[in-house]
Amino acid sequence: MTQTAPQFNAFTPPRRILMGPGPSDVPERVLAAMARPTIGHLDPAFQGMMEELKTLLRYAFQTGNRLTFPVSGPGSVGMEMCFVNLVEPGDKVIVCSNGVFGGRMLENVKRCGGVPVVVEDPWGRAVDPDKVEAAFKAHPDAGVLAFVHAETSTGAQSDAAALAAIARRYGALTIMDCVTSLGGTPVLIDAWGIDAAYSGSQKCLSCTPGLSPVTFSERAIERVQARKAPVQSWFMDLNLVLGYWGGEGARTYHHTAPINPLYGLHEALRILAEEGIENAWARHRRLHEALKAGLERLGLAFVVPEAERLPQLNAIFVPEGVNDAAVRARLLNEFNLEIGAGLGAYAGRVWRIGLMGHACTAKNVRYCLEALGQVLGRG
Amino acid sequence: MTQTAPQFNAFTPPRRILMGPGPSDVPERVLAAMARPTIGHLDPAFQGMMEELKTLLRYAFQTGNRLTFPVSGPGSVGMEMCFVNLVEPGDKVIVCSNGVFGGRMLENVKRCGGVPVVVEDPWGRAVDPDKVEAAFKAHPDAGVLAFVHAETSTGAQSDAAALAAIARRYGALTIMDCVTSLGGTPVLIDAWGIDAAYSGSQKCLSCTPGLSPVTFSERAIERVQARKAPVQSWFMDLNLVLGYWGGEGARTYHHTAPINPLYGLHEALRILAEEGIENAWARHRRLHEALKAGLERLGLAFVVPEAERLPQLNAIFVPEGVNDAAVRARLLNEFNLEIGAGLGAYAGRVWRIGLMGHACTAKNVRYCLEALGQVLGRG
Repeated sequence: MTQTAPQFNAFTPPRRILMGPGPSDVPERVLAAMARPTIGHLDPAFQGMMEELKTLLRYAFQTGNRLTFPVSGPGSVGMEMCFVNLVEPGDKVIVCSNGVFGGRMLENVKRCGGVPVVVEDPWGRAVDPDKVEAAFKAHPDAGVLAFVHAETSTGAQSDAAALAAIARRYGALTIMDCVTSLGGTPVLIDAWGIDAAYSGSQKCLSCTPGLSPVTFSERAIERVQARKAPVQSWFMDLNLVLGYWGGEGARTYHHTAPINPLYGLHEALRILAEEGIENAWARHRRLHEALKAGLERLGLAFVVPEAERLPQLNAIFVPEGVNDAAVRARLLNEFNLEIGAGLGAYAGRVWRIGLMGHACTAKNVRYCLEALGQVLGRG
Repeated sequence: MTQTAPQFNAFTPPRRILMGPGPSDVPERVLAAMARPTIGHLDPAFQGMMEELKTLLRYAFQTGNRLTFPVSGPGSVGMEMCFVNLVEPGDKVIVCSNGVFGGRMLENVKRCGGVPVVVEDPWGRAVDPDKVEAAFKAHPDAGVLAFVHAETSTGAQSDAAALAAIARRYGALTIMDCVTSLGGTPVLIDAWGIDAAYSGSQKCLSCTPGLSPVTFSERAIERVQARKAPVQSWFMDLNLVLGYWGGEGARTYHHTAPINPLYGLHEALRILAEEGIENAWARHRRLHEALKAGLERLGLAFVVPEAERLPQLNAIFVPEGVNDAAVRARLLNEFNLEIGAGLGAYAGRVWRIGLMGHACTAKNVRYCLEALGQVLGRG
């Protein structure tokens, strides 16, 4: 006797405008690509696309790193892949914490058996390079510096070039979270000398969530290959993943790649290349200025000081006496507009307005300001 | 100065007939669902769909387990999630190895710091319950039994009910790989008393690859909650994942769920529920019989003894003197037909013909036999 079969209607999602911290709006071209016929992960036609994907990702990351590919999992898996490969039990890691995602890095270091040295900065602020320098002075044996370039929980942008330069002076590798920055604001892996970086498909790349572009320098690969302890994760072990994504030649089966979402990412990256990455950065900057002007007219105050703000993630304080959840519910239900809630210490106190990728348009900026003005009665 | 933007054409995959070990053909309905507008992972509309998904998965697994959900990663991540949560350093685990995926389970046990007790059976054969009983007699302190229900590398099906009963007699939990069985041959989590099971979206469920349905019994959840050591993976820690997928109420952000692929899985599971799971099992059995008769007419020999064969994965020996890769290349290039190569010890020696989900049709059986006959010159 089997269970009675459940009966549900086909799921027809509402059409939203996604101006939260991601996912951002996915263009029709990307959605259409996702619906193309599935083929095998070892099909030569698919493997040709994989090579193009790697080239397109190198462009997005501005790197020549041969080991540049999309991990078959969300950004959190990309993050964990960096840590489980580059941190061995007992390794000292300097971790910068200025928001939720720095905290998650710390958690990863601990679970790998690493010895974290935490550089703490206030939420809403960039990582202070002087503190990082001081941490290396006190712990010159630290082998890795980990920091978040674009803190999605606060909208603060750190000076990745300065941080990576300090790490190199002390002979340490750098792990950088660029989940929210990639495609929206300059991410220059090679120019900055970053050794490992992970991002997400659903932010400024405007693909569906679930893929995590990563890139590793040769120095990082050498570190992995010189490990004494095996990587604790089978799925994330770069030594194994390399057989599938690494070479240009014959590929070894490792796991079944998520075929259709990869079609989507290929198309999303083609769109980025068509626009030109510098134009994409300029668009995010320009429309951030427009949004900022409008938010200030509505009397809304930014969380992050101007010089440290990410254009694509605008964190503003919920005004005194205003019910956070009620406002977001009205925006969603009456305007089909999603903005983000605050995370962690900012829950209930902060809104996060994303201007990411395909959602970063003048029309959306106007629409969001109009909707917010109406709901707040400040129109 | 940024890199020159790469220029690639849109990727238009060929139309294949997928009769390998997965992915299987994805129905148009599922592809169309994947292309619906992306919404947020915390959107109430999305969360309503998540509840339906859980109900549909409980039906597929034939379980009442509240903790039943799709992991945001391929089957290998579902596998690793089971092991990292249920195995603590020093725990003794009986692992049945009769193919590639049993070997991968063993690798997972080791990387969790578990102490494996390996029950070895020949490739192409089911796991021998007597050997498992003997292993428990010799190691009554083993806390977990791990086995593959449907060994995708060989096409052998093991007697999950018998194996789980032994584990229960010795007070051990069971971890079962049902990646290739779910939806194609009976998987009865509750009737068999399985504590943790993982599957894949791209086999008999005929969704795109990249999601891993999992289910955990209350006994398994208690074991996780009673752990002394933290789970070594942040992403796979069930204590954290529970906050997003576990309850019926307010959800905590854990990671960004892969929205569009989940639309696809919802639709794929609706198709399974419409057909009725017993009808799906019967269809796989019936068409396996038709394929078997045809393969035998072509003089092709099965790897697995008849009583232990999986209907949905037909492993046959490459005939003496026939070039494995050349045949598969002709099938792909001239017939757009994908069949699977042998893995590991079977590389070059075995073909694996899948009859999975949407690809399991009378038309495909005829087409595959016709194509194979022509290419082998035995038509």
